[in-house]
Amino acid sequence: MFEFFFNPDGVAIIGATDSQLKGGFHLVRNALAGYRGRLYPVNPRYKDILGLPCYPDVQSIPGTIDMAVYFIPAKFLPDTIRACAAKGAKGIIIQSAGFSETGPEGRKLQEDSVAIARSLGVRLWGPNCMGYLDGHSRNVFSFMYTDKWTTLMKPGNVSLIVQSGMLSAGFLLMMMERGGMGFSKVCSIGNKCDVHETELLELLIDDPHTGVIACYLESIMDGRRFMELARATTKPVVVLKSGRSRSGANAAMSHTASLSGAAAVYDGAFRQAGVVQVFDMHELMDMARGFSKTDACTPGGGTAVMTFSGGAGIVTVDLLEDRGLDLAAVSPATMAEIKKVFPPWMEPAHPADLWPAVEQKGAARVYIPVAEAMLADPAVDSLIIETFAWAFGSTDYITEIGALKRKYRKPVAVWQVGSNPAYDQHRTAWEDAGLPVFEEISRCVAFLSEVKYHFGKKDALRISS
Amino acid sequence: MFEFFFNPDGVAIIGATDSQLKGGFHLVRNALAGYRGRLYPVNPRYKDILGLPCYPDVQSIPGTIDMAVYFIPAKFLPDTIRACAAKGAKGIIIQSAGFSETGPEGRKLQEDSVAIARSLGVRLWGPNCMGYLDGHSRNVFSFMYTDKWTTLMKPGNVSLIVQSGMLSAGFLLMMMERGGMGFSKVCSIGNKCDVHETELLELLIDDPHTGVIACYLESIMDGRRFMELARATTKPVVVLKSGRSRSGANAAMSHTASLSGAAAVYDGAFRQAGVVQVFDMHELMDMARGFSKTDACTPGGGTAVMTFSGGAGIVTVDLLEDRGLDLAAVSPATMAEIKKVFPPWMEPAHPADLWPAVEQKGAARVYIPVAEAMLADPAVDSLIIETFAWAFGSTDYITEIGALKRKYRKPVAVWQVGSNPAYDQHRTAWEDAGLPVFEEISRCVAFLSEVKYHFGKKDALRISS
Repeated sequence: MFEFFFNPDGVAIIGATDSQLKGGFHLVRNALAGYRGRLYPVNPRYKDILGLPCYPDVQSIPGTIDMAVYFIPAKFLPDTIRACAAKGAKGIIIQSAGFSETGPEGRKLQEDSVAIARSLGVRLWGPNCMGYLDGHSRNVFSFMYTDKWTTLMKPGNVSLIVQSGMLSAGFLLMMMERGGMGFSKVCSIGNKCDVHETELLELLIDDPHTGVIACYLESIMDGRRFMELARATTKPVVVLKSGRSRSGANAAMSHTASLSGAAAVYDGAFRQAGVVQVFDMHELMDMARGFSKTDACTPGGGTAVMTFSGGAGIVTVDLLEDRGLDLAAVSPATMAEIKKVFPPWMEPAHPADLWPAVEQKGAARVYIPVAEAMLADPAVDSLIIETFAWAFGSTDYITEIGALKRKYRKPVAVWQVGSNPAYDQHRTAWEDAGLPVFEEISRCVAFLSEVKYHFGKKDALRISS
Repeated sequence: MFEFFFNPDGVAIIGATDSQLKGGFHLVRNALAGYRGRLYPVNPRYKDILGLPCYPDVQSIPGTIDMAVYFIPAKFLPDTIRACAAKGAKGIIIQSAGFSETGPEGRKLQEDSVAIARSLGVRLWGPNCMGYLDGHSRNVFSFMYTDKWTTLMKPGNVSLIVQSGMLSAGFLLMMMERGGMGFSKVCSIGNKCDVHETELLELLIDDPHTGVIACYLESIMDGRRFMELARATTKPVVVLKSGRSRSGANAAMSHTASLSGAAAVYDGAFRQAGVVQVFDMHELMDMARGFSKTDACTPGGGTAVMTFSGGAGIVTVDLLEDRGLDLAAVSPATMAEIKKVFPPWMEPAHPADLWPAVEQKGAARVYIPVAEAMLADPAVDSLIIETFAWAFGSTDYITEIGALKRKYRKPVAVWQVGSNPAYDQHRTAWEDAGLPVFEEISRCVAFLSEVKYHFGKKDALRISS
C-alpha cells in the first residue's frame, strides 16, 4: 500500500530552486540526503540544482516517475496532475498552500484537482502540508529547513500522522533533539483532500517498523473505519483531536478546512476503540515515547512507588487516586526485602522513600534491589521510579533496572530531578535502558493509566477473538 | 518578626565537621558563602573548620548568639536547647531527623523539646528539614550540598514554604538552573514542631522582597488564620497541598508526621481564600514564576492568541474553553491592524496564525505590531503568544513585546517551540523581558485562568474594604 509514496521509483520535485532561502531548495537537499532513487528537479529557470540536472517541465523528465512533490503555486495543479500521470506517477505530495483553507475559490480548485486525479488513478497527498519523512528508509520529502536531519533522525518505532506543519517541523525537531524515541514514518497530511489519516493508520498498523501511532488531527475522515482499525490493532493509537470546542472548530475550518465534528461523539468513540486521547502537544509525544518502550502490562494490581523524596511520594499517591489507580498493596515479604537496604533506624513504608538508604549505600545498592522486590511482587502491575540525577557515580544501575523491567514485563515510568549535566546524562541513560522519563509526576501517572487501559483492552480483545 | 532567624547576630553550627561528605561541613561552607555575622562551628572533635575556630560545646562560644543550627543526633536536643538559651539564642533550626516522623518515641522527644523551648523563650524551626536560604541577604543555613549557590542563587520575589527536603534542595537547584525567576526566602520547615507555615506566611506577606508565596504543605497549622491571611493579601499564594487522598494522608503521616485533613475542606477553603491550588511539582513552580512577572490584570474580556502554528492555535482555543476562559472577541479594527502585516492573499483570523507573515517579513515586523494590536484591544484581558525560537536573527523584538506588556498592564503567557541553542536563548530573552514561558500550552491557559481569578478576587477585596 502506498509503495509509490514511501518507496518510489523516480521522484520529480516540481518547484525545485537553488535559493537556500526557499523551500524548493530544501526539498531537493532533504531528498538527496536519504532517497537513493532517481530524483528530478523541475524548474524552467535552472539547468541544474545541487548537482542534479533540472528539467523545465514534467514532460521533459526522461523515463517514468512513481511520485511527484508539488511546490509551485496552487493554480497549476490540475495541469500538473495530467503531466505527472502521463509520466506514470501514481501519487503527488502537494506541499503548497492556497487550496480549500483559503475559501471558496481554493476549495473549488482542490475539488477539481481531486476529480482529475481520481479519473487518472493518481493519489493526492496534502495539499498545505509538509510531506513525510521515514526514519528507516531515510526518505525526507519535506520542504522543511534544517541541517540536523542526518544527526537527529533516529530510526525507531514511533509513527506520526499530523495535520499541522509545526508538529511535523519545529516541534518534531525539538522532540528529535530531546531524544528518547526514534521515528518510523512522520506523515504531515494538511488538508488531506484525498489521502487521509484512516488510510495511513491502516498502512502504519501493517508497517513492521511502527510500534506506536500518534496523531494530531483536526477531523477524522471515515471515522467508523478509523475506530475499527484502532480497536482491532494491538498497537497503541494516541490521538490529539483538536477543534473540540466551538471556537476551536471554527479555527480548524480556517486552518485545514476541517469539519471537526462533535467532541462528545469523538470522546465516546475513542474510548470504545481504546484510543489514547490526549489534549496537548507534549502530552502527545510523552505518550508516544512511553508506549514506544512499553510492550507488556497485565493490569489487575496496583502501582508501586519508589522515590528519593517523601513529599514527591505523597503527591504521587494523590495523583494515582485522582486517576482512579491503586497504590499497590505490596506484600510483607516485599517490605522485608526493602528493609534489607534501609538504615536500621528506618522502617520502610510505601511509597518507599529511598533517600536515607541511598545516602548510606549509593544508588545502585538501593535502587536495584528495591526495583526488583517491587517488580517481583504479584500485587504490583506497574512501577513509578522517582530519582535524583546524582552528579557523581555511574549510571550502570539504570541499565540493570531496564533489564529488570524486561524480565518482569511490567511498565515503569520515571520522574527525575537534578541539574545539568547530570540531569541530561541520567535522562538519556534511563531512556536508553527502555524506561521513559517524564517531566511531571502527573505524566507518569497518566501514562501508566493509559498503559493499563490499553493492555487491558487488548487482553479483552484477545480473549474475545 | 523572626529577625533572629533571618538576620541573626551570631550563629552556632552544632554538628559542624570538616568532612566534605557530611552535611555538617556544608552547613559551615554554605553559611560562610553569604552570612556576614559571627559564625561558631561546634564539635568537640575539631579545633577549626574552614578557617573558623571550632568550639567543643555551645557553652564555650565567646559572647552571645541569636540562633543555632542543630545537626547532631536527635537525643541531644533538650540539653542543647538549654545551652543555647543560656547563650541568648532565640531560635534553633533543627535539621536532624529522628523525631515524630519515626514513631512514638521520637514524638515524645519532639514534644518534650518544644515544651522546654517554650519555657525558655526559644523558637524551634524543623526538625527534619533543610533550613532556609535568602536570595537577598545571601544567608544559606542548610546542609544541602552544592557548589552552585553563588552562581545560581538570583535574588527575586518568589518565596517558598516547603515541607519537603527535595523541594528545597535538588528540585530548587534545578529551578534555579532553569532560570526565569529569583528567590527571596526559601523555607524548609519539615516536621514544623513549633514554627509553621502560617507564621511564615504572615512574615512573607510583610516581606518587601516577596511578591509571590508558593507552598508545598502536607498539613496546615492554624488553618483559619492561614486562609484569612491569604484572603487579605494582594500577593498571590500558591499551594500544593499533598495528602489529599487516603493513601496520601497515610504517607504524609510517616513523612513529616502531618495530619493531612480532609481534601474537600481544603478545596473549599482555598477557593474562598483565593489561594491558587496546584497538584504537581513543576506546576507549583510554573505558577510561582508566572505570578512573579505578573502584577496586573483586569479580568472581564477574553484571551487573545497569536501563534506560529494553526494547529497550536486550535489546541489553545480548546484548552481555553476547557478552563472556562473565552477567546477574546477582538474588534474589526484590531483585525485590520493585523491584516497590515499579513500577506495579501491571507485573511487574518483569530487565533492569528503569523507564520506566513513571519516568513515574509521576519519575526520583529510581525510579532510586535500584532502584540500591540491585541493588547490595545479593550476586549482582550490577557494574551498567549506562541512562538518558534528562530535560529537566526536578534531577540530584540522580545524586549519590545515586554515593554508592550507593561504599557498595557495585561498578563501574557508564552509557549515556545524550537531546538537548541536558539530555544534556550529565546526562552531566556522572554523571561528577562518579563514574559513567562511555559512548556505546555495547557500551562499557559491554567496560568492565565489563575491570574484572572486572583486579580478578580483582589479587585473584589479592594472594593469591599
